Amino acid sequence: MMDRLDRQLDFLLEAEKLKSVYRATPLIDNARPENSAEHSWSLALYALVLADQAQPGVDANRAIRMLLLHDLVEIDVGDVPIHSGNGAAHDAPAVQAAEAAAAERLFGLLPADQGAELRAVWQEFEANETPTARYAKSLDRVQPVLLNHAGGGGSWIDYDVTLSQLDERIGTKVARGLPGIWEKVRARVLPWFEGRDRA
Amino acid sequence: MMDRLDRQLDFLLEAEKLKSVYRATPLIDNARPENSAEHSWSLALYALVLADQAQPGVDANRAIRMLLLHDLVEIDVGDVPIHSGNGAAHDAPAVQAAEAAAAERLFGLLPADQGAELRAVWQEFEANETPTARYAKSLDRVQPVLLNHAGGGGSWIDYDVTLSQLDERIGTKVARGLPGIWEKVRARVLPWFEGRDRA
Repeated sequence: MMDRLDRQLDFLLEAEKLKSVYRATPLIDNARPENSAEHSWSLALYALVLADQAQPGVDANRAIRMLLLHDLVEIDVGDVPIHSGNGAAHDAPAVQAAEAAAAERLFGLLPADQGAELRAVWQEFEANETPTARYAKSLDRVQPVLLNHAGGGGSWIDYDVTLSQLDERIGTKVARGLPGIWEKVRARVLPWFEGRDRA
Repeated sequence: MMDRLDRQLDFLLEAEKLKSVYRATPLIDNARPENSAEHSWSLALYALVLADQAQPGVDANRAIRMLLLHDLVEIDVGDVPIHSGNGAAHDAPAVQAAEAAAAERLFGLLPADQGAELRAVWQEFEANETPTARYAKSLDRVQPVLLNHAGGGGSWIDYDVTLSQLDERIGTKVARGLPGIWEKVRARVLPWFEGRDRA
């Protein structure tokens, strides 16, 4: 078990680097950008707390694991903000290829059986087809909306995001994985967009 | 379900504040202190990856939940570094009372049934009596050791920690919850302490 443990500790030390990958979203007090490690903590907590809002067939424990792992590839690739560029950057083949290579390297640090198991969890998240993956992906889209709103606009200001863009990039996708949430979150952020339109 | 969801979202927004609670341990590259939110992410990832090293009776999914929640009380109370003061500060009655009040406030933001459930998870961690809590507590003690070592000494330098103090404050407790790990981690950090003794 000792060689196994060495590989596990090396993986965990490598994962520490995610704390230095910064995102477009600011913290709730707008003091600094959020990093991808603490973002992953938020999402795992979302998955835990909102489990009773999830669709049938969602495995909350697996969603939590998925969200703990989902951004590790950013250690090599960095974060691609959803509102940057054409909004489809997440799905660009070049980004997907780089993330796949990062997953191979990072999960390859683990013992082979465990690396394959955790890489499969990450791939399920990326494929966004199972109820659990859709739940996890929806949380990944909702949390930055609440943070941007709390921080006074955040990346909506930086990328000049409109409410209809938010509906399209976030709302339609959240409605697929976590129906009922988007209506509530949209109502919370609506006054911010209305206020900016009046300004 | 809408009022329930509002309470859940309010709790999740309040939890965001944990990202601004800083710890004594530096990041792996020594660039800045670690915060308690990203620390909680690390520990949940440790619980996931090291589950096959755990004692019989450990529920890894519950340990992950425990570690996602375990430091939320620091939003009100702050972090008490293990090597500061007399090393027993964690167990001081004043700290325990403040943390209990914080738990009441924070978990009280949730719907009553869910707040009681998650507070019980936190209390199980604090009591450190079940195999799952001992596993989670051991991880909470091991991760800062690896980070301090990677960061060139970290809080060991700030608080002038000796190897025998590390053995006493960390090693004996980790041996109880996660036997086999301490020997490996101690071997990794030993050269740092030997190097300092020679200097």
